[in-house]
This record gives sequence, C-alpha cells and structure tokens, in this order.
Amino acid sequence: MSTTVVFVFAIAVSLLSFGVAVYFLQWVKKQPSPDKAVCELGSLIQQGSRTFLRREYTLLARFAGVAAVLIALFLPRPVWLGDYSENLIMAAAYILGTAVSALAGKIGMTVATIANMKVAEASSKGIKPSFLVGFRGGAVMGMAVVGAGLLGITVVYALIRNTTAVLGFSFGASSLALFAKAGGGIFTKTADISADLVGKVELGIPEDDPRNPAVIADNVGDNVGDVAGMGADLFDSNVASMTAALVMALALDKGEGTYTVMVLCYAAMGLLASIIGVLVARMGKNGSPTSALNMGTYITTAVFALATTLATWLFGFEWRIWGAVIIGLLSGTVIGITSEYFTSDTRKPVKYVANASRSGPAFTILSGVSYGFLSIFPAIFGIAVAAMASYLLCAPIDPSNPIYGMFGISMAAVGMLSVVGMIVSNDAYGPIVDNARGLVEMGGLGEKALEVTDSLDSAGNTVKAVTKGFAIGAAGLTIIALLGAFMSEVNTAAVEYGLEGIKNFDILNPVVFFGLLVGTAVPAVFSAMLMLGVDRNAQRMVAEIHRQFNEIPGLKEGKEGVRPEYAKCIEIATNGALRELISAGMMAIGATLVVGFVGGVDAVGGFLAGNIVSGLLLALFMSNSGGLWDNAKKYVEAGNHGGKNSTAHKSAVVGDTVGDPFKDTAGPSINTQVTVVSLMSSIMSRIFLVVRLFR
Amino acid sequence: MSTTVVFVFAIAVSLLSFGVAVYFLQWVKKQPSPDKAVCELGSLIQQGSRTFLRREYTLLARFAGVAAVLIALFLPRPVWLGDYSENLIMAAAYILGTAVSALAGKIGMTVATIANMKVAEASSKGIKPSFLVGFRGGAVMGMAVVGAGLLGITVVYALIRNTTAVLGFSFGASSLALFAKAGGGIFTKTADISADLVGKVELGIPEDDPRNPAVIADNVGDNVGDVAGMGADLFDSNVASMTAALVMALALDKGEGTYTVMVLCYAAMGLLASIIGVLVARMGKNGSPTSALNMGTYITTAVFALATTLATWLFGFEWRIWGAVIIGLLSGTVIGITSEYFTSDTRKPVKYVANASRSGPAFTILSGVSYGFLSIFPAIFGIAVAAMASYLLCAPIDPSNPIYGMFGISMAAVGMLSVVGMIVSNDAYGPIVDNARGLVEMGGLGEKALEVTDSLDSAGNTVKAVTKGFAIGAAGLTIIALLGAFMSEVNTAAVEYGLEGIKNFDILNPVVFFGLLVGTAVPAVFSAMLMLGVDRNAQRMVAEIHRQFNEIPGLKEGKEGVRPEYAKCIEIATNGALRELISAGMMAIGATLVVGFVGGVDAVGGFLAGNIVSGLLLALFMSNSGGLWDNAKKYVEAGNHGGKNSTAHKSAVVGDTVGDPFKDTAGPSINTQVTVVSLMSSIMSRIFLVVRLFR
Repeated sequence: MSTTVVFVFAIAVSLLSFGVAVYFLQWVKKQPSPDKAVCELGSLIQQGSRTFLRREYTLLARFAGVAAVLIALFLPRPVWLGDYSENLIMAAAYILGTAVSALAGKIGMTVATIANMKVAEASSKGIKPSFLVGFRGGAVMGMAVVGAGLLGITVVYALIRNTTAVLGFSFGASSLALFAKAGGGIFTKTADISADLVGKVELGIPEDDPRNPAVIADNVGDNVGDVAGMGADLFDSNVASMTAALVMALALDKGEGTYTVMVLCYAAMGLLASIIGVLVARMGKNGSPTSALNMGTYITTAVFALATTLATWLFGFEWRIWGAVIIGLLSGTVIGITSEYFTSDTRKPVKYVANASRSGPAFTILSGVSYGFLSIFPAIFGIAVAAMASYLLCAPIDPSNPIYGMFGISMAAVGMLSVVGMIVSNDAYGPIVDNARGLVEMGGLGEKALEVTDSLDSAGNTVKAVTKGFAIGAAGLTIIALLGAFMSEVNTAAVEYGLEGIKNFDILNPVVFFGLLVGTAVPAVFSAMLMLGVDRNAQRMVAEIHRQFNEIPGLKEGKEGVRPEYAKCIEIATNGALRELISAGMMAIGATLVVGFVGGVDAVGGFLAGNIVSGLLLALFMSNSGGLWDNAKKYVEAGNHGGKNSTAHKSAVVGDTVGDPFKDTAGPSINTQVTVVSLMSSIMSRIFLVVRLFR
Repeated sequence: MSTTVVFVFAIAVSLLSFGVAVYFLQWVKKQPSPDKAVCELGSLIQQGSRTFLRREYTLLARFAGVAAVLIALFLPRPVWLGDYSENLIMAAAYILGTAVSALAGKIGMTVATIANMKVAEASSKGIKPSFLVGFRGGAVMGMAVVGAGLLGITVVYALIRNTTAVLGFSFGASSLALFAKAGGGIFTKTADISADLVGKVELGIPEDDPRNPAVIADNVGDNVGDVAGMGADLFDSNVASMTAALVMALALDKGEGTYTVMVLCYAAMGLLASIIGVLVARMGKNGSPTSALNMGTYITTAVFALATTLATWLFGFEWRIWGAVIIGLLSGTVIGITSEYFTSDTRKPVKYVANASRSGPAFTILSGVSYGFLSIFPAIFGIAVAAMASYLLCAPIDPSNPIYGMFGISMAAVGMLSVVGMIVSNDAYGPIVDNARGLVEMGGLGEKALEVTDSLDSAGNTVKAVTKGFAIGAAGLTIIALLGAFMSEVNTAAVEYGLEGIKNFDILNPVVFFGLLVGTAVPAVFSAMLMLGVDRNAQRMVAEIHRQFNEIPGLKEGKEGVRPEYAKCIEIATNGALRELISAGMMAIGATLVVGFVGGVDAVGGFLAGNIVSGLLLALFMSNSGGLWDNAKKYVEAGNHGGKNSTAHKSAVVGDTVGDPFKDTAGPSINTQVTVVSLMSSIMSRIFLVVRLFR
C-alpha cells in the first residue's frame, strides 16, 4: 500500500462517515416533533446550550489566539534562531486542531438538542422507535467526531509530512478538549447539584420539575458536559493516539512510509468498522436497548479484527504490529468488563455499598471509596500487561532501537481506540435519552412515555460504565505512547543540535525522580481544583435559586403561567465554570513549564511518568466510585433496604452527590489534562533539551 | 572517630535513654492514683489492651516463626547453594527485630495505661501538674522506642558487620510494625465508629458513657492503635532510615568505616538531643500545653543542629553529608508546618469545610476530599526538593558512583528522623490524655477536671498534625533511600555472581514500567482492604452492642450496678482486626513476589518507585483530609454555623466518621506497607537478580 493510496482511503472513509452523519441528521430531523409546550422547553435547552458554547468558544478562541502567537514565536524553536516556517506551520495546525475539535462538539450538541425532543415524542409510540431515534442522534456525534479526527490528521500529515504539524494539530485538539471537558464538567455538576439540593432535598419536588429555576440549566449541563465535553475528550484521545503513533512511525520510516501507512490504514479501518456497526445495530425481538447498544460494539470489534487481519496479509504489513493492535483491542474489552463489575447493580460492590448505607452516609462513603480504590487494580494491571506485551512483541523488529517497542504501545492504543466511533455514538446516546426523559416529565407526556424513556436511560447508564472503562484504558495506553513520542522528539532534536540524546529516564536520577514526584501530585491538585470549582459555583447557584423562590410570587406553589428565570441560572453556571476551569488548566500547564525549566528533559520525562500513573489511579478511582454510588442509589430506589425515603436511601443520595463531580467533572478531565501536558512536552522538547545544558 | 568509639557512644546514648525512660516510669508510678471506681475502669482498659496485645503477638509470633524459617532456607540465597551461615544470621536478626519492636510497643502501652489514670487524678489539681504526668508518660514510650532502635541496630551491626544482619533486623521491625499498625488501626476505628454510631447517633448518650458496651474497647483502641501501633510505626521508620544509610555506607566504606561511623554518630546525636528536649520541656507561665510540646521539639532541633555541626568539625566528617542531614531536618519542619495549615481550625481549609457542611454531608465530603488532594502538593514538593537537593549535594563526592547521591538522600532521612524521640513522646502524650479524659468522664471526676483534660487533649490534637506531617515526610525520604539500598544490594550481589549489575531503572523499559504501574496500584488496594476491614468489623460490633442493649435488663436506663459486657466488644474488635490485617498484609507481600518473579529486579525497581509515589499521595491525602474533618467537626462544635445538633454539625460528624479510618487506619499504615515491600525487595535482591536471567 503506498502513501497516496492510504491517504485516499483514509479521506474516503472520513467522508463516508460524514455522509452517514448527515443522513442520520436528516432522518432525525424528519421525525415528528412533540407538542408546543415540550418544544418550548426543548428550545430553552437549545438556547442555553448555545449560549454556553458561544461564551466558552469565545473565551477559548482568545486563549487559542494567544497560544498560537506564542507557538509561532517560540515553537518548535525560537524564531530568532533561523527558519520560522515550521513555527507558522505548527501555529496553523494548532488553530486547525482547536477549530475542528470545537466544530465536532458543536455538531454533536446541535443534533443532541434536536434528538432529545424527537425521542420524547417517539417515546409515546414505544421503545423500539424511540431507541432508534436516540441511537441515530448519538451516531451523528460519533461519526462526525471520529471522521473529523481522521480527516484532520490525514490532511495535515499529507500536506506537511513532519511531526511538527501533526503535534500542533493534536495539541490544539487537546487544549480545547481540556477546557471543554473541564468547563462542561463544572457546568453540568453545578447545575445538577444545585437543582437537586434545593428541589429534591429542601422542597421535596421531583427531579425535572419545571418550577425549579435550575432545571433547564441541569438539562443544558447534560449537553455541554456529556455531549460536547465528552465529544471533545474522545476526539482528543483518538487524535492523540494517532499522533503518538505517527510521530514514532516517522522516526522509524526512514523515507519509505511503511509504518505511517500502517497507522493510517488501521485507523481508517477502525472508523469503517464503526460505520458498519452503527448502521447494523438494531433492537432485537427481546426489546432490550442495552443489548442493541452492545451488539453494535461487538459487530464493530469483529469487523475491525477481520479487516485488519486481511489488510495485514494482503499488504504484507508487519504481523508483530498487527499483534499489538489486537492486544489493544482485547485489553480494552477486558478493562471495560472489569469496570462494569464494580459499577453494576447486580454485582457485589454496589450491593455492599447499598447495604452499608443503612448505617448512615459515612458508611456509604467509606465503602464506596474502598471499592473505588480496589477497582483500579484490574484496569491498571490490564494496561500494564497490554503495554508490556505490545512493547515486547514489537521491540524485536529492531532490538537496537527502543522506539519500536514504544511504537508497539502506541499501536495498541490505536487498536483500543479503533472502535471509538461506536463508543462515542453509545456515549452520546446517554444524554440524549436523559434529556428526553426530562422533557417527558416536564411536559407531562404521560406514564407510558416516562416508562419508555426511563428504560432507555437506564440502558445508557449501563453501557456508559463499559465505554468509560474503555475510554480510560485507551487514554492510559495513549499517554504511555506519548511518553515514547516525547523521547522520539527529544532525540530527533538532539541529532539536529548535535547534542547528546536521551537513552533512558532513570528513576535513580534525582532530577527524573523530582519530576516523578511533582508529576504525581499534579492530577490530584488538578481534580481538587475542579471539584472546589463545582462546590463554589454550586453555592452561588443555590443562592440564586433561593432568591427566585423567595422573590417570584407564585413560583413555589406552581401557579399557572409563572415561570422561573431559567436564564439567570444558566448564566451563573456558565460564568462560574469558565472562571474555575482557567485556573485549573493553567496550574497543569504552569507545573509542566516549571519542571521543564528547572530540570530540563530528564525532569519532564519523570514528570510525565508521574502524571500517567497518578492520573490513571485517580481517574479510575473517581469514575468507578462515582458510577458505583450512582447505581447504589438506584438499587435502593428500586425498593431494596427500605426503598425511597429510607435511611439507606438518604445515605445513598449523599454518595451519589459526592460521586457526581467525581465521575462527571474530575475523573474524565484527568486524562485530558495528562494528554495536554504530554503533547506540550513534545512540542517544547527542543527548549527543554537546551535547558538541560544549563544544569 | 573510630568505629569502636562510635559503637560505645551509640550504645551509651541508648542506655541513657533507657535510664530516662525508667526514671520517668518510676516518677509516673509514684503519682497519686484516683479513687477505686476510676481505677476499676482504668484496669478494664489495661486488661483489654493486654488481651489484644497478647493475642496479636501470639499470632504474629507464629508468622514471624514461619518467616524466619523461610529466611533461613532461602535468604539471602537458597541454603543448597553453599554457605548458610548468612541465612542463619539473617533469620536471627529478623527475630530480634520483631522482638525488640514488640517490646517497644509493649512498654509504651503498659506505661500509657498507667499514666492515663494518674493524669485523670492530677487533672483535678490543675493543668500544670497533669500536663507533666501526661508528657512524661509519653516520654517513656519515646525514649524506650528510639533507644531500642538505636541499640538494636548498633549491636547487630557491631557484631556482624554486613548488610545481611542489618537488613534482617530492619525487616523484622517493619513486618511487625505493619501488622501492629494495621491491626491496631482496624481495632481502634472499629471500636470508635461502633461506639459513636450506637451511642451518640442512635441513643444520644454522651461519648465515654459507661453504659455503652463499646466504651472500654474504644479506650483500648486508643492504646493499641495510637500508642502501640504508632510506636511500632516510628520504630520501623527510624530503624529503616538507619538501615538504608548503613547499607549504602557499607558499600561506600571500602573497609575504612568513614560513612558507617557518620550514620551512627548522627543518629546517636539525634537521640541525645531528644533526651535533652524531653528533660527540659516544661509548661511556661502562659499555661499552654501546646507551646510546651512545641518547645521540646524546637530545643531538640536546635541541640541536634549544633551538636552535628560541632561533631562534623571535630571529627573531620564530610561537610556535604552533614548538609544533607540539615536539609532533612529543615524540610521535615516545613512539611510539618504545611500539613498543619490544612488541618488547623484557624486556617481557611477547615473553615471552608465547616461552612460547606451547612449544605449537607455531601459537601463536607466533597470539600474535604478536595482540600485533602490539594494538601499533598506542598509536602510532595518538599520531599522532592529535599531528595533532589541532598542527592545533588552528595553526588559530587565521587561523580562516578551514583550511590553517593542516594546515600545523601538516606542521610536527609536520618536528619529528618533525628528528632524522632521527641516526636514519639509528643505523639504518645495524645492517647494518654485522651484516655484520661475518658476516665474523668466515666468516673465523674467533675467539671474542672474535664475542662483540664479537654485542654490537654486539644493540645495533643494540634501537635499531632505537625508530628504526623513530619512522620510522613521522614517515611517518604526513607523509602526513597531504600530504593537506593535496593540498587546497592543488587549490585553487590551482581558482583558476587559475576552478573551484569543495575545501572538504572529506565521508565522506558517496559518491564520497569509494568512494575511502576502495578506498584502504583498496591497502596490503593491495601488501604481499601483495611477500610473495608474496619467497615465489616464495625458491622459485627454494632450488632453486638444492639444485642447487649436489648438483652441486658436495665442497661439502657443506666440502672445502678448494671454493667455491659465490655469484654465481648473487645473480643470482636480483636478477632476482626487480626483477621482483616492478614489479608491486606499478604496482598502487599504477594504483589511484590509476583512482580519480582515475573519481571526480576527491573520490574521490582519500578514497582518500588510506583509504591513510593502512590503511597505518598494516598498517605498524605488520607492523613490530612482525616485531620481536616476532625477539626471541622470540632470547629462547628465550638459554636460555629449553628453549633451542636445543627445541620452543619450532623454533616461534620459524617465527615469525621469517614476521616477516622482515613487518618488512623489506612493513612498511617501505607508508609509501613511501602517500607516492608522495600526491605523485602532488598533482602530478596539475589533471587530477583537471578529471575532476570530467565527472561
């Protein structure tokens, strides 16, 4: 397979996925809309989401502008040191990365805020038609996001065949994802917690009651946090995994393009498999939306495995590298399954926590924290084995060059992320049907519709556990691969400058160890800042809700025609989220710069490793314990241990409230934080290499 | 200074500290005892503590026996490979280490259970006399523990001048500490949580009410957890820091004894300084017990700094190594102060959490977790800087030998632990006055006595925050130094076997990275197991308390002469603690063996580094957030945000209950767990080195 062929193939598959996205979008739009009252609520959600995105993107555009100027001036090397064409290319690629990432988020959110209304309407006709609307709505996001990633990276690489452009693009995508994920995460949990605290706890009114001033903000949060944020996050992981692989492939290629071709070919095949999975997935006769979603994933996995085997055989690719891809694919599945064990309400952990809740909230928290810490073991062990196995499998290709082994790890990440199109689709399905449920309740569409949307929603939560495990596993391998990319970049730069390169990052080197320790602390501080941000922001919002209930006559009583000022709550959540995310993001970036300028490349290597291990530890802990508490609450609500309003239920609600920012704000942002600092280290490798000289 | 002189000096200082301990013990014993009723309660606590210790030591003796046989057979090398005298020496030193450690715990607990009664009696005479009784009672423990450590290590080293004996002794001390700390931690929190849950929450009776069947177990817990467990823990850190330093000093000495002399000389001077501090510390005119305790620490620090400067000048020691010792001393103080910031009720974090508690327990937890994660940064940064600075200071002594740098880190740990005698004294003071407070309340010794013991108790809590930060910092440097000791041992063995030694532990080596990832997970799983152990055990105990209140007529009503069956609760706490600690301890040891046998020395190097970074992260998080919640509760109880029985108070109590096993069970056990696996890796270095050959 020649490079030209693979470019054409990858671009064709991307365009095909866009075609599918457009087709699904039109199909969803054609579905009947609900009555005026529901449409009105729906359009409030739409407007709120747009407002947030516009404000967020405006702010981020300024940041991206400043960053682009800094890149143009200093990266990959200061302009006054001669050739600055690379600087301009990197800056342009960076801008392109942020723009494509923002666009993917925007598309997903637009369709999600249409699809939720269509699902609400379809739900009165039964589970099968409404599932299809929700699923196809999600698939628009999946196809758009993954297609954009592949198209962007292929075009950037095809035009300018060096690492500078690809790294710039990926860094742009990541830095946007960091803000989108963290900002969206703060927004969604601010609104969720405040709405619950005043509505459910203080006043005893149901979730999604239209009297609650925060209820629209809560639904907007599902969109900006779960749809736009998550889209940007997986876009970022996907692009970063391809970037890590391409950076090392370029170092290994020596002009022939053997390895870059493999990277793009396998990635395109993953998207192709996802397209097939999305098109084929249907609800079977048993009427279970969960198995319909899982079926899509299984089909995608099988098609991908088959297609890559064929391609490897046909084009004479290196079988060892194909093996690494398959290791990634398999271990992703294993990690997804184990994370399901710790969060499923049919397994011991959730049952244990629900039972412990009978003794009070302290026991809900203690047992949940304990199982959260236990849950990290299988996933970390899985990632450790996958990384070691793919390295050892690929290292013998040329034992004298350690990059081969790291390239194997990056290909395992590509393999794990091959099914990402399907995963984004499944994940976007969740907030769509969650929103639809809200509209059904707020609009009073009846018991049957509520039952249908409840069942769609619960399927979304079950699948989410698996896909989330998958996403963390993939991010884990990706960030390990980015460590390899960093070393590769440093050594390329070392050759260029005639300096000594990096042979290793020795733990016993005090500078590396210094970086390792500081790197370990960063994800903890980062997640603490996000959670404190949610806390502070929720306090502001609770005060606003209280004000409205006190000052708007007839609101508490639900007087006809009296509506709360939804927009005020959305504004508070938006402003607060943007304010809080900036300090957290700056801290992570600042720490990288400090370590790099104090200790040079060696310290940065240790720093990245520390970030990886503690990032994985905390991301897994927070995602899994959060999911566990969520399901323990649902388990109690299903009538166990006294059901609703029992002591166990009150305790389980406390667990769920703690778990919310764990699993939806801090946990999923950590991976992005680690990816951003990894990519930043790679693009600054020349500068950090020179710092080393001064020590 | 010759080796003989330093042996005599170290042994003389140890004997002097024993002398001080005996003098204080006699002095405490001579103080007047309270009336019969209180003595009776006191002796119930005494009996309970003895029962627990006897059962624990019996069990541990069996374990130690098995371990000693295994050591004799396999370590440092399998007996069938020739010379087995070293195996016998290591096994004997191991037994000695466990015995001395057990003895230190036993002595401390015996005096603590006497001193608590004397303090209770003295409290009616005012704060000054009762403080002195409490402080001297604690000092018996401090002097005995540190004297035993120095004496043990000096004698073992003086008799058999190689690393085998020293490592065996230290491993014995650590493995006992692991069980004592974890077992005591489970016991104390089981009793504490159960007593509070049924007493305070369900029945609304005060803390330390004699009707509560768990009240004696709760007081026993303070002794077995805080006194015996903490004593074993600091004994272990202290011995491990000297061991790490001695192992590397032996590798550097080349027969002259320069470096081993320095290690023992500085360590002995630290003990001497502590003796002076303990003898001089008195309560000033302002009547503040806190400043009296702090005065002791400052005096000790100043005396140590002065004495080592003099000694270095007089005996012509290497100034760079003295510098590392001072770096350790200073950074210990800095870490103690920052950990005080996060847990003091006059600072922002505690006030913020107390304020957040007004919105419900979920916010207590969320804000506490966030500040807990933030709190790790200054301490980890301090350790990172101390390690890097002491390495870079000592490495130039011989740039071709990396052991010098690691030896510098180990000397920083010795410096940080120089004031350990004072720290143990301060720490043991806490549970003594806490127990005295319980006796005053249970025995009805009057308001004034209660006020005095309350103020003594609160001083104990304040000082605890500083000493705990100190202890974690010291443990952090010690475990980093043990990584150096591991490398040193591996390379000594490699020379012996004519194999290739270890030049580095390269993060980019997939086997090292595999170890790093698995090592990161172990402290999380370990602490989860301990906390689940507390949870399970507390459930058993709560059931027993319910049974007693239901079945014993007149108990609930407080009928004259009706006493609960205290012993039953003690038995449940004892049996449960021993059962739960074994699985957690075995997991940590088993993981080390698996990693070592799968990946050999390289994987073990990564494993230890992973253990260090995640162990520090979690230990700091758990200790600080636990202390923060404790003080937030006290802050609310002092009348803020509605005071007792307000929403804020109920939420703060939930935080405190969650924080209890964090700060008293899991947090402080993690350091010991890391020390044990580090020492185990060192003594198994030969075996892991051979495993490497098979890969």
